[in-house]
Amino acid sequence: MQKILRSLVQKNNSKIVLVVLDGLGGLPVNGKTELETAATPNMDSLARASACGLHIPVAPGITPGSGPGHLSLFGYDPLEFQIGRGILEALGLGLEIRKTDVAVRCNYATIKDGLIIDRRAGRIPTDQSRRLTERLQKEITKVDDAEITFAAGMEHRFAVVMRFPEELEKDAAQLPDTDPQQEGKAPLAPQPLSKNAEKVAATAGKIIEQVHEILKNEERANFALMRGFSGMPDIQTFEEAYGLSSLAIATYPMYRGLATLVGMHAPVLEGTVEDEIAFLKEQYNKYDFFFLHVKKVDSYGEDGNFAEKTKRIEEFDALLPKIMELNPDVLAITGDHSTPALMKGHSWHPVPILLKSPYVLGGLCSSFSERECTKGELGIFPTVQLMSFMLANSLRLKKFGA
Amino acid sequence: MQKILRSLVQKNNSKIVLVVLDGLGGLPVNGKTELETAATPNMDSLARASACGLHIPVAPGITPGSGPGHLSLFGYDPLEFQIGRGILEALGLGLEIRKTDVAVRCNYATIKDGLIIDRRAGRIPTDQSRRLTERLQKEITKVDDAEITFAAGMEHRFAVVMRFPEELEKDAAQLPDTDPQQEGKAPLAPQPLSKNAEKVAATAGKIIEQVHEILKNEERANFALMRGFSGMPDIQTFEEAYGLSSLAIATYPMYRGLATLVGMHAPVLEGTVEDEIAFLKEQYNKYDFFFLHVKKVDSYGEDGNFAEKTKRIEEFDALLPKIMELNPDVLAITGDHSTPALMKGHSWHPVPILLKSPYVLGGLCSSFSERECTKGELGIFPTVQLMSFMLANSLRLKKFGA
Repeated sequence: MQKILRSLVQKNNSKIVLVVLDGLGGLPVNGKTELETAATPNMDSLARASACGLHIPVAPGITPGSGPGHLSLFGYDPLEFQIGRGILEALGLGLEIRKTDVAVRCNYATIKDGLIIDRRAGRIPTDQSRRLTERLQKEITKVDDAEITFAAGMEHRFAVVMRFPEELEKDAAQLPDTDPQQEGKAPLAPQPLSKNAEKVAATAGKIIEQVHEILKNEERANFALMRGFSGMPDIQTFEEAYGLSSLAIATYPMYRGLATLVGMHAPVLEGTVEDEIAFLKEQYNKYDFFFLHVKKVDSYGEDGNFAEKTKRIEEFDALLPKIMELNPDVLAITGDHSTPALMKGHSWHPVPILLKSPYVLGGLCSSFSERECTKGELGIFPTVQLMSFMLANSLRLKKFGA
Repeated sequence: MQKILRSLVQKNNSKIVLVVLDGLGGLPVNGKTELETAATPNMDSLARASACGLHIPVAPGITPGSGPGHLSLFGYDPLEFQIGRGILEALGLGLEIRKTDVAVRCNYATIKDGLIIDRRAGRIPTDQSRRLTERLQKEITKVDDAEITFAAGMEHRFAVVMRFPEELEKDAAQLPDTDPQQEGKAPLAPQPLSKNAEKVAATAGKIIEQVHEILKNEERANFALMRGFSGMPDIQTFEEAYGLSSLAIATYPMYRGLATLVGMHAPVLEGTVEDEIAFLKEQYNKYDFFFLHVKKVDSYGEDGNFAEKTKRIEEFDALLPKIMELNPDVLAITGDHSTPALMKGHSWHPVPILLKSPYVLGGLCSSFSERECTKGELGIFPTVQLMSFMLANSLRLKKFGA
C-alpha cells in the first residue's frame, strides 16, 4: 500500500499537524472514560466539525507497545517493520541510531566463578548504576574500529551502541541474547547467526570482557549481559515515502528516537506542552508535517491515576486554540494506543481520532470521546491507514487510474 | 476472494440491478451534501427498508479514476487489475477491445528537421483533428497482418487500436511511450521491452512512419506520438466469475467499454436516463444482471455545479419507481466514487450505497445520504466486496463449508 501511495504523492504547500496524546484511549470508571470525564470544550467543538473514528494500531485485540503504535501512526505496518528491543532501549535513553549501528540493551549482573548468581545485580540503585556506566564510557570508547556508546538506564539497565565505520548488512545484528535466562549458569558468548554478524559478535565479546575487567571488584555489578541485539530497520523515510519534510516535537527521547527512524527531524526539546506548541509555531514555516507528542496522558494512565490522566487531557484542550491559530490544512488529534487508568497499562482498545480538514462531512459526533467516535465517518480502521487520510485531506495524492 | 466466490456460485432466476450514479458521493456546502440537499423521497423510502453503508473503491484516502471505480464495483480488485491508459482512451472513444488487440493513445505533434517542436501540435481544434484522423483511417487500415483502427478525440488527441490475428501474450504491449516529454528532442522509436512486444513495436513503428508520410505537409499536425501502450487485461468474465449473464446500460462509451472488459453485453445506446430505464425494461427477461450507468451526476460534480448535480440526483429519484416496478430481487444504488462539487473532481470519500433485498435488516437510516449511510448495516467496506453482497442477497451463493 505504501508503494501505491508513494506513486501518487504530489507536493503542495499544505501543512499537516498530527497531535499524539500518548495513551489517549480509556475505559469507563463510574460510567465515563477519562476523555468523557475531561472538560474538553475545544476538542468537542472540533469533533463536531471533523471526520471522527477509532483506529486499531496493530491488529484487533493486540496491545501495542510505543514502537508499533507510533510506526503505525506514521504509516508503517508494525507487523512488517519490527523495531529491535536494543534499538528501542537506546532510543529511549536518548541515543541516536544510524545505519552503521548495532544497539543492545544490557543488564548489570553478578558473576562468581564463571556462573551468574544474580541476573540483575541485585537491582542496584539507579544512581550507582549511572556512576558505573559513566566509568565504562570513560574507559571504553572504541573497540577495534567501532565507536562504543553507553547510556545509563533505570536500576541495573543500560544500553550500548556499537558504531561501525560502514553501513551494516541487514543480518549483521543476528545474535541471540548472552543472558542464559537462569541463575547458576554461565553467560553465553555472543554467537553470530549469520556471516555478517561475526564482526558484531567479536566486538560485543570484547566489550563484555573489558566491562568485566573494569568492574571485577564490584560487589554486585561485575558483569554485563546483552539482550536484543538490533540494527536500524530498513525503512523508507517520510520524505521518500510521502514527499514530506517533517518535524517531531517531543520531550521524551524515545518518541524523538522513533521519529528519527523514519527520517523526521527531531531536535532535543525540554519543557511543557505549552513549550512544545511554542516550538511548533516557531518552526511552522520550515516543514510540511509536524508530529507533536504529549507524554503525560499515558504516564498517568499507566499509574492508574484516572483523575490526573483526565486533567492532562484538559490541559491539552485548553492549549488547543494556540494550535488552531496556525490553521493547519489538516489537524489530527489522537493517541498511539489506549492506556485506560482502569488497566494501569497499554491496552488493545481502538483509539479515538478527530481529523479536521475542509474536506470532511462532520456533524456526526457531538463531542470527542471513544463512544462518540464510533458514530464518525472514518469508522474503525487500521491505524496504518491514517497517513493516507492525512495526505488525501491535504490534497497531496493524485488520482489512481483514469 | 473471487476464487472462493466462484466455487460457491449457483444459478437461479433472480434479477440483480446495479444502478451507478457516477460520482454520487459529495461533501457539505452550507451544511448539506448534494445528496442531502436533493429531494429524493423514493431513495429515502428505499433506504429506510434497505441495507445501507459506504464503500471505499480502491483504498482509504485514494481517489479512484473511473476505471478502478467500476472494476471494483464489478468485484475485481483495482489494485490487481490495472487497466492501461491506451485501453481506457480507446474505450472512451468507443472502440472495442479484444484479447488480440493493443491500444495506444496518441497526440498529434509538430516535427521539424527530426525534432519535436510542439508535442501537442498547437492543440489543433477538435474538428480539424477529426478530419485528419478520418483521413488516416481511410489510408491506413492494415499494417502487415494487423488491422488498424483510429478514433478521434478532443483537440490533438486520438487513439489507435492494432488488432493482430491471434491472442497476444501478457507482455506484448510492454513498450515505453514514444513521446520524449520534452520539445526540442527527437521522438523515440517504439522500443520493445520484451520478446513478445517486438511485433507490436514493429507495427507501431510502421504506423508512425505512414502517418508522417500522409501528414507531412500539414503545418502543425504532421506527426504522431504514442503513449500508454496496453493490452486487454487478463480478467475473468462476469459469466465465468459469477455465472451471471449481464447487460450494461450506458450512454457513454467509456462505461460500456469498461463493462465489455468483464464480458458484459454493452450495446450502443443514446438518450436520457428515462431511455436507459426503458431499455432496462425491454431487456429485463434476457439477462441476470444489469449495470445501469447515470453519467451526468458526476459531470456536474466535476464542474463544481452543486445545484445541477443535486438536480440530476432528483431526476433519477423521480424515475426510480419505473425500476421498482420491475421488482428486482436485488437493487443496489450507489456511485463508482465521490465527486463533491466542492472539490470539482473525483475524491477519496467513501460512496453511499443502499441495497434492497428481502434479506436485510433495514430500519437504520432515515434517508439516503452520506451521513445516514454511516449508520447502516453494511458499515464502511471495500467496494470490491459489493458483488458478494449482491450475489448473497440474490441467493446465488451456496454455503461455505459444512
